[in-house]
Amino acid sequence: MPAPITLTTDFGLRDPFAGIMKGVILSINADVQLVDLTHQVESFDVLDGALTLAESYRYFPPGTIHMVVVDPGVGSERRPILVSTPDAAFVGPDNGIFSVVYERERGFEVRHITAEQYFRRPVSQTFQGRDIFAPVAAWLSRGTAAENLGPVITDYVRLETPKPQRSGDGLTRGSVLRIDKFGNLTTNFRPVDLPSGVSFSLRLQDRTVTRLVTSYAAGAPGEVFAIVGSAGFVEIAARQDSAAMILGARKGDPVELELSEPGLVV
Amino acid sequence: MPAPITLTTDFGLRDPFAGIMKGVILSINADVQLVDLTHQVESFDVLDGALTLAESYRYFPPGTIHMVVVDPGVGSERRPILVSTPDAAFVGPDNGIFSVVYERERGFEVRHITAEQYFRRPVSQTFQGRDIFAPVAAWLSRGTAAENLGPVITDYVRLETPKPQRSGDGLTRGSVLRIDKFGNLTTNFRPVDLPSGVSFSLRLQDRTVTRLVTSYAAGAPGEVFAIVGSAGFVEIAARQDSAAMILGARKGDPVELELSEPGLVV
Amino acid sequence: MPAPITLTTDFGLRDPFAGIMKGVILSINADVQLVDLTHQVESFDVLDGALTLAESYRYFPPGTIHMVVVDPGVGSERRPILVSTPDAAFVGPDNGIFSVVYERERGFEVRHITAEQYFRRPVSQTFQGRDIFAPVAAWLSRGTAAENLGPVITDYVRLETPKPQRSGDGLTRGSVLRIDKFGNLTTNFRPVDLPSGVSFSLRLQDRTVTRLVTSYAAGAPGEVFAIVGSAGFVEIAARQDSAAMILGARKGDPVELELSEPGLVV
Repeated sequence: MPAPITLTTDFGLRDPFAGIMKGVILSINADVQLVDLTHQVESFDVLDGALTLAESYRYFPPGTIHMVVVDPGVGSERRPILVSTPDAAFVGPDNGIFSVVYERERGFEVRHITAEQYFRRPVSQTFQGRDIFAPVAAWLSRGTAAENLGPVITDYVRLETPKPQRSGDGLTRGSVLRIDKFGNLTTNFRPVDLPSGVSFSLRLQDRTVTRLVTSYAAGAPGEVFAIVGSAGFVEIAARQDSAAMILGARKGDPVELELSEPGLVV
Repeated sequence: MPAPITLTTDFGLRDPFAGIMKGVILSINADVQLVDLTHQVESFDVLDGALTLAESYRYFPPGTIHMVVVDPGVGSERRPILVSTPDAAFVGPDNGIFSVVYERERGFEVRHITAEQYFRRPVSQTFQGRDIFAPVAAWLSRGTAAENLGPVITDYVRLETPKPQRSGDGLTRGSVLRIDKFGNLTTNFRPVDLPSGVSFSLRLQDRTVTRLVTSYAAGAPGEVFAIVGSAGFVEIAARQDSAAMILGARKGDPVELELSEPGLVV
Repeated sequence: MPAPITLTTDFGLRDPFAGIMKGVILSINADVQLVDLTHQVESFDVLDGALTLAESYRYFPPGTIHMVVVDPGVGSERRPILVSTPDAAFVGPDNGIFSVVYERERGFEVRHITAEQYFRRPVSQTFQGRDIFAPVAAWLSRGTAAENLGPVITDYVRLETPKPQRSGDGLTRGSVLRIDKFGNLTTNFRPVDLPSGVSFSLRLQDRTVTRLVTSYAAGAPGEVFAIVGSAGFVEIAARQDSAAMILGARKGDPVELELSEPGLVV
């Protein structure tokens, strides 16, 4: 069994675009397992796609090929690229979608995919997921070497993922990265930002959160609390309820963190 | 080919949670077929998940492993369990999600999953689908014996699925169990509750339904009728239309059944 | 590896209907790859299903079996059919869902599926996707010959797919066939309707579009433009924006095309 190919797009599930890409892949490699990460990245939102991928790729078997098509520049001069790490390969447009991979991985290589013999012809200017990324992913899963796909490049596009910023007034300013289906707010704070034994206040939309719990079920009914989420970020959440609805919060909202050292007179 | 693993959750399809669980499974058993039953169980609604599973599991091949993650108590004291029947295995939280299996199946066994060597480490307190249920399902599909996963328990949680109740006034009071995508209302009445040769009235939201048809297409335009649905329950439906919209009906709404014996003067 | 089976329905993703059909298929053929084209065809909209299939089926490997269940007449006298072409097989109701296949393919054969030994028994009158189409698709994927499934018929149902009509006033009247997730409007005009070197006006909802671009990214911000979409139709689109929202356009809306020959005094 070859390693799986995952698909992450902003195509939605109403149109058959994801299915068409799977048809192209299976036409080249009939044996490969196909796994949808999501097709509901927000339309044209490269950062949202980058964060979705970042949360997911390390849970797949070695050799997995991750194909990501969030591609507002499709048909323009933006390059199709292949990112190879020791454990995985990533295929998609050079628009920053793999920025978290560049941040985290060591020993990766980025190539401009220029080997047109691996493309479907003619190449559509509106659906290169079908004509470039899907066939390239399929050939990779059949063992085509990265070197055959195009030259190494170093001027690939990197997006800055939003990081909390410490300011002079003792506050650290972060933000809401994502809101999940349950209304849990993933912030860009890390557990290390809330050291144990130190009181904290997280402020968001006029609400102050001061309690860190270890499971959703440990929250009181109606309480908005902090919790370390499964992706390794601090979440603001509520028990069997939507923190996003309770707070009226949205993606991108600012979150302020204040720490109080124990023993300090404030 | 090993038997498939099915996935049923309330995770939705926007977040990559289902995909992440598939990555964990394929990391342990690269050959297994993965089938989504649904990821759109209503958030935290264990009964809705139980009914979805009940409608589905008997259509899968012998040996299929059904993984169900509707888990409002994740990270609390609720136990992870394995239910083994002669034909299938079920993995999920001990919160009643397998209640219909307990009602229907003979010769089943319930185990508290305690064998931590089969878990991903560290175990998240917010996403045990990824760290406990997915790897356990994957090991089962590779042939790990149920006995290795933990001890048999008998005090597992059972939910009452709502059943129609006969009352003194000659009425039987049921309810709307589910509403499907087409707006068909699945009640908890069974075909046996509408014996042939006996007139019936089903009352719901000021509407009285007295006709049982054998196909949706046999309904008249605009008519709301009764029909035996594919899950073996009496449905209230409309032809190419939504009975739920026509009636303003919702899940849980009461449905009253009155039978009139033929020949009786009422 | 047998050729894949694709699924196209109007079942949505909340109910487990698609998963149940997959269980039935895997019970008969454990090895087959299952690919969802979409389960979000508009309810009961046979033409929408036909167009979705038309856009997709040619991207799959030879021998692929396409199962389509958009079936408002389920349980009525409408026939279950099998359409065999040299490259593919199609299984579904005889309601016109395969009309584009009949338009495009040469050397196809349509059979009324009558061989009940391949059905699940008893056959539900409300869910024949489960009891007829899924098992028949599975048996086909195991190599059952088309001849064994039933007799050839020639009086199958054909739907007219809407085609642009030239009228006496020099206009050609087309329409919006579909709107994709991004708000791009697929019209029923073909690239050949906009010959190069000829000025054109496409009129829709009080807006006139006169520019044909080759990629979405080539549009100006806020501009509504024409582009040849991936399915081979002329689309009306906007750059990182929804043309449907900008224009207030809906499926079925009329689109008027006027051509101006160069050198003609108009």
